[in-house]
Amino acid sequence: MKIANLPGDGIGPEIIEQATRVLNALDEKFEMESAPVGGAGYEAHGHPLPEGTLKLAKEADAVLFGAVGDWKYDKLERALRPEQAILGLRKNLNLFANLRPAILYPELAGASTLKPEVVSGLDILIIRELTGDIYFGQPRGVRECPDGPFKGEREGFDTMRYAETEIRRIAHVAFQAARKRGKRLTSVDKANVLETFQFWKDIVTDVHKEYPDVQLDHMYVDNAAMQLVRAPKKFDVIVTGNMFGDILSDAAAMLTGSIGMLPSASLDANHKGLYEPSHGSAPDIAGKGIANPLATILSAAMMLRYSLNKAEQADRIENAVKKVLAQGLRTPDIYEEGTTKVGTKEMGDAVVKALA
Amino acid sequence: MKIANLPGDGIGPEIIEQATRVLNALDEKFEMESAPVGGAGYEAHGHPLPEGTLKLAKEADAVLFGAVGDWKYDKLERALRPEQAILGLRKNLNLFANLRPAILYPELAGASTLKPEVVSGLDILIIRELTGDIYFGQPRGVRECPDGPFKGEREGFDTMRYAETEIRRIAHVAFQAARKRGKRLTSVDKANVLETFQFWKDIVTDVHKEYPDVQLDHMYVDNAAMQLVRAPKKFDVIVTGNMFGDILSDAAAMLTGSIGMLPSASLDANHKGLYEPSHGSAPDIAGKGIANPLATILSAAMMLRYSLNKAEQADRIENAVKKVLAQGLRTPDIYEEGTTKVGTKEMGDAVVKALA
Ligand SMILES: CC(C)[C@H](C(=O)O)[C@@H](O)C(=O)O
Ligand SMILES: CC(C)[C@H](C(=O)O)[C@@H](O)C(=O)O
Repeated sequence: MKIANLPGDGIGPEIIEQATRVLNALDEKFEMESAPVGGAGYEAHGHPLPEGTLKLAKEADAVLFGAVGDWKYDKLERALRPEQAILGLRKNLNLFANLRPAILYPELAGASTLKPEVVSGLDILIIRELTGDIYFGQPRGVRECPDGPFKGEREGFDTMRYAETEIRRIAHVAFQAARKRGKRLTSVDKANVLETFQFWKDIVTDVHKEYPDVQLDHMYVDNAAMQLVRAPKKFDVIVTGNMFGDILSDAAAMLTGSIGMLPSASLDANHKGLYEPSHGSAPDIAGKGIANPLATILSAAMMLRYSLNKAEQADRIENAVKKVLAQGLRTPDIYEEGTTKVGTKEMGDAVVKALA
Repeated sequence: MKIANLPGDGIGPEIIEQATRVLNALDEKFEMESAPVGGAGYEAHGHPLPEGTLKLAKEADAVLFGAVGDWKYDKLERALRPEQAILGLRKNLNLFANLRPAILYPELAGASTLKPEVVSGLDILIIRELTGDIYFGQPRGVRECPDGPFKGEREGFDTMRYAETEIRRIAHVAFQAARKRGKRLTSVDKANVLETFQFWKDIVTDVHKEYPDVQLDHMYVDNAAMQLVRAPKKFDVIVTGNMFGDILSDAAAMLTGSIGMLPSASLDANHKGLYEPSHGSAPDIAGKGIANPLATILSAAMMLRYSLNKAEQADRIENAVKKVLAQGLRTPDIYEEGTTKVGTKEMGDAVVKALA
């Protein structure tokens, strides 16, 4: 089994290092190969997603991704900016299903900005479609406004779109995930305004016929944003499009107050996947040895479960993480009085030790 | 001065009634005329925005709007559903600037799901563009997918777009509002993915040259959703497009835990405006006399300030509302132990009395 390691920028290399150590501490042999991506790809080969990196990612059974981005690339033209690497990987590898759990570990309840009774025990799964929607729809650009009151002046424009197949396949992923959990699925749309999402709603409703054991409800995206703040524990699984999913999954992650703990998986139709922490590259703390590696370590666990068919090893990692939290070890982002502050490497050490 | 009263559906009529009583208790004479809108418009004239209602709204100096919507209209075709009335009014009256304050009254700090230290004293203003973006962009619909891997099958699609003038005018509103407050403006976009919002960002940056005294920063919408949960008090004024504004303004309102308290204004270029509470029609509690009329009463105050040039009267209403809160009066939505639970009418009575 071959894993492509794409550490990226900022704290990416540090957290990937710890995740690889944890993987290597399992009683399994993985072939691992690294390649530069994001700003690092641009520095090495003039492109955020160099050809060799894409080739490696395509060949591998799974991709372990750190994080990309740094202020210093802000002035580059859009096509060369680090985040284009993520979009390119998603599109080229057909990673249409993004799974983002928002879980609040009991030990970290205090880290949330929400009241403990509102979030304690939070365990929701956001499933975001990742290769369609307004992210990739054509045409897009800046043009002369073709009609209406602003005819003739410049306008920026993009196309939102979802084909039936795209909606069906993400709906299947969502219903199947719900079936394995609390059997409740909320499909988030904006069917009262957008044609794309009236169509989305109709197709999801149709797919529901194949999952009569799962309870489906539909919610407008503005209401979903409110309900996530008001009563997040009422959700089980949420499924939505690429754009709304971008916003809601980040909001949901922040509810936990410990985004440094949250993994994510982006899957294709054949269980191949890209795994990355939900947080960013945090250039401000890069190289200081204080980044939290747990989201990346937990992403490696998701990789074992979803792409490498090693659920037991995944469980082992997840249990080891719970153990170090119970031991009171905390990186600065989740530190509270009465716990023990540790750095990136010590946290990795502790997880490796807890695996034993 | 002529006010068009559009009570609408659900709790709309009850809350508009109290707001009108408060307006009538001022030492001013307003001409008021009512017309049905939303579901009520459909029942009376077969359309959510009947011709006579639109005509009245156009003639009036300001529109006081209750709320629209009820489950029973869900099965109607889109063009006849209650919320089309709101979209129609916005577009026909050119109400391009939506002002939504998210304020946490000290007395109601406990109502928030966020920890008191995170939200106490919250006072942010969200300015949402209201007549452009993907809400109205053409073309849109369901069609045969023209190209790509799903060619030939059905797809739903919409067009996101902003013309230069549309961005400039909302940016001016936002900079001017920031100037009257904390002098900090955050423009929320998704310039890393969307052409429309790279264009938005460029134009807002250009308009900024005319407001060197206001500090401008740019934030991606996913990050904005996170920061609203993490540290909402760091914001002063937020400006964004119609779609992102829909989501963020509702999330911001919910941070306060008392959406029953939050007014909104939707303005054209000449100070004409539509004023409505931020909450919906709440059909489940309609007719029970327990709806909170304060958001509508505060919307009437905004109307006095922005459209009718009666800032002093607006202050009087706002002070009266503060007074009734200080007296401990609460409708059920904001009730806490140790306060006095009152109904819609008693709350209206109390505000009228407090005006004296
Ligand atoms: C970096 C950006 C293009 C990306 C997105 O919008 O999808 C990021 O926000 C994410 O959610 O992974
Ligand atoms: C009812 C709906 C069309 C409307 C919108 O999306 O603008 C509502 O959510 C709002 O924010 O006023």
